[in-house]
Amino acid sequence: MKKKDPNIIAFGEQVKQLRLAQNISQEELAHRCGFYRTYIGMVERAERSITLCNVYKIAKGLDVDIKALFDYEQSR
Amino acid sequence: MKKKDPNIIAFGEQVKQLRLAQNISQEELAHRCGFYRTYIGMVERAERSITLCNVYKIAKGLDVDIKALFDYEQSR
Repeated sequence: MKKKDPNIIAFGEQVKQLRLAQNISQEELAHRCGFYRTYIGMVERAERSITLCNVYKIAKGLDVDIKALFDYEQSR
Repeated sequence: MKKKDPNIIAFGEQVKQLRLAQNISQEELAHRCGFYRTYIGMVERAERSITLCNVYKIAKGLDVDIKALFDYEQSR
């Protein structure tokens, strides 16, 4: 990604909010998802393009419905 | 993807349902999203790994909230 997509930034922030609400570290969430240690930090900072498969893994790691990851105001 | 992920299959079917409900061809939706002509067909058949950026583009092309793309029963 050359320029950060506002939707991807908002998604990363939402992951962070949900993670913090559960008091889980980035490393712990990465472990639960089967990702390498630093991957969640990169997602939260919108530094990584993420696949839909991995979005589902994050929802599972947080034990939330995938729709909860998009439960914020979106730019369209 | 070696084996098709049930969530990715369900996502593709949901895209198809929403597209058909609007009476749009795969080619037309691809055009609206800025994808090549055959891309939507591959997404609907869960033949392609899709990035979150492209999920947002499909939501925009269908003029729906991204959550509508996940509005189906999910396997967790």
